[in-house]
Amino acid sequence: MTIDVVVREVGMRDGLQSIPDIMPTATKKTWCTAEAAAGMPEIEVSSFVPPKLLPQLADASEIVAHALTIPKLTVAALIPNLKGAERGITTGVHKLNYVMSVSEGHNQSNVRRSCAQSMEDFARVVDLCAAAGPKRPKVVGCLATAFGCTIEGKVDEDRVRRFAAEFVAAGADEIVVADTVGYGNPAAVGRVFTAVIAEVGSLPVAAHFHDTRGLGLANVHAAVEAGVRAFDASLGGFGGCPYAPGATGNIVMEDLVFLLEAMGLKTGVDLDKLIGVREILKTALPNLQLYGNMAKAGLPKNFARAA
Amino acid sequence: MTIDVVVREVGMRDGLQSIPDIMPTATKKTWCTAEAAAGMPEIEVSSFVPPKLLPQLADASEIVAHALTIPKLTVAALIPNLKGAERGITTGVHKLNYVMSVSEGHNQSNVRRSCAQSMEDFARVVDLCAAAGPKRPKVVGCLATAFGCTIEGKVDEDRVRRFAAEFVAAGADEIVVADTVGYGNPAAVGRVFTAVIAEVGSLPVAAHFHDTRGLGLANVHAAVEAGVRAFDASLGGFGGCPYAPGATGNIVMEDLVFLLEAMGLKTGVDLDKLIGVREILKTALPNLQLYGNMAKAGLPKNFARAA
Repeated sequence: MTIDVVVREVGMRDGLQSIPDIMPTATKKTWCTAEAAAGMPEIEVSSFVPPKLLPQLADASEIVAHALTIPKLTVAALIPNLKGAERGITTGVHKLNYVMSVSEGHNQSNVRRSCAQSMEDFARVVDLCAAAGPKRPKVVGCLATAFGCTIEGKVDEDRVRRFAAEFVAAGADEIVVADTVGYGNPAAVGRVFTAVIAEVGSLPVAAHFHDTRGLGLANVHAAVEAGVRAFDASLGGFGGCPYAPGATGNIVMEDLVFLLEAMGLKTGVDLDKLIGVREILKTALPNLQLYGNMAKAGLPKNFARAA
Repeated sequence: MTIDVVVREVGMRDGLQSIPDIMPTATKKTWCTAEAAAGMPEIEVSSFVPPKLLPQLADASEIVAHALTIPKLTVAALIPNLKGAERGITTGVHKLNYVMSVSEGHNQSNVRRSCAQSMEDFARVVDLCAAAGPKRPKVVGCLATAFGCTIEGKVDEDRVRRFAAEFVAAGADEIVVADTVGYGNPAAVGRVFTAVIAEVGSLPVAAHFHDTRGLGLANVHAAVEAGVRAFDASLGGFGGCPYAPGATGNIVMEDLVFLLEAMGLKTGVDLDKLIGVREILKTALPNLQLYGNMAKAGLPKNFARAA
């Protein structure tokens, strides 16, 4: 089946990194398998950060190895730096999501270096991947806090476009623009994605929204109109940014899939099966608050999926 | 101050009618006064339905009389039929919101008559108001279940346009298109509002969305793009349709105001004061679940209101 929009589960990384209780590796594998079986085309399964800093994701290599056995699934992992890239490349992961904050202050706080230093490291990551030969991972340039951040407030919109251009010039295969703390609104989203898409040409540009102030899906709609065809989200809205106070959850995957399918955009995801996967999270993390309206309300009567 | 978009509180009607515990008349007045003081330009304060059917709103006339004492506030009330209009007119209310479901089955279940009969009654309501002289209330034609309903499923989009035209031909001063049960999506919202606005010319067209499946604010964004400049919502998302199972709440007023102001559209509402009004609801209805992300997250750092 061809799909119109790629939805990508990020809860295994963005969700898990935000909670202290360590989910057993076996449960992570079960979750990954179940969500892929619901039709999820891409999952960011972990992050190659130092295990001492984030014990929750210390099993990144094992999770990637498992995910790579699932047919048709695109397997991605986050990397904060060159060291993470080195670990990631050895696993054979399909995509390395390299994160830099557009906000200088947030980048310092998150990865302890300037944006310029992050950009230099990105070029090294690209070189390292190129050296890995034809089965090299794709390198994704992710621009966090693209719509503002809790340290600096407003972020200059043109900075997003310029950094996207720098990522591309350095050899990125894809760009992600992320509203890490839910500061975006549909007008800004329309402007920024239109500018970035015009800048990077035919390279894929994905969007990563948080629903901190309730505008997550309105921002998705604005991004769809700007031409975005790839969106991050997490099951039950699981997640947040551990370094951004009050930055509750990613947009809810179940509601995102409903939005897209209702608009006639095929995702390839079976909503009923996807909602069923929530049970795995509920059982594994009984104290976790799961969000999402679709899971409560169910599909409209006689709802027709995107054909 | 001029405003760009009129937001209208409907929780005093749509919210209260959905709960069994009767709120004291004094509390309703306090709520109404506080929300007007936060800058709310229009409130649907009650419904002129038979008190035996809906004891919660038996004090409609007293609430309207109170609301009319508040400077600059536009005071609206719902009416299901001609009898309601008779009661409403005697109060001097500014607007009578006459409701008809676009879905034949839902109209039968909600007001026990066909759409054709509802339309005939609407013409009588207009005549009755005209007879009330220069201080007559404006008559608003509200099209409920415009995007589908739990009885019939899909609703023919062109039916919405045709009924809007019939309302206008019969003398409506304004049209409201309502997604009573959260079946709408941004694509359908764009199509329907574009068609209705083209049909009714210069008359105001407002939107009433429920967030049942999480798409409420995405639908607002699509409606704004189609030219809609008036939106219903309720404080804390209080509400639902008592006749539509699973139809959780109206869109959240606080999040709606944030969406609009963030996009540069002036509402005249002070968000901090508005969020403060939630305390009245919390105290009066301690078991009520209040929704909304803005109230939890607060404004972004250095947030600039629409100037």
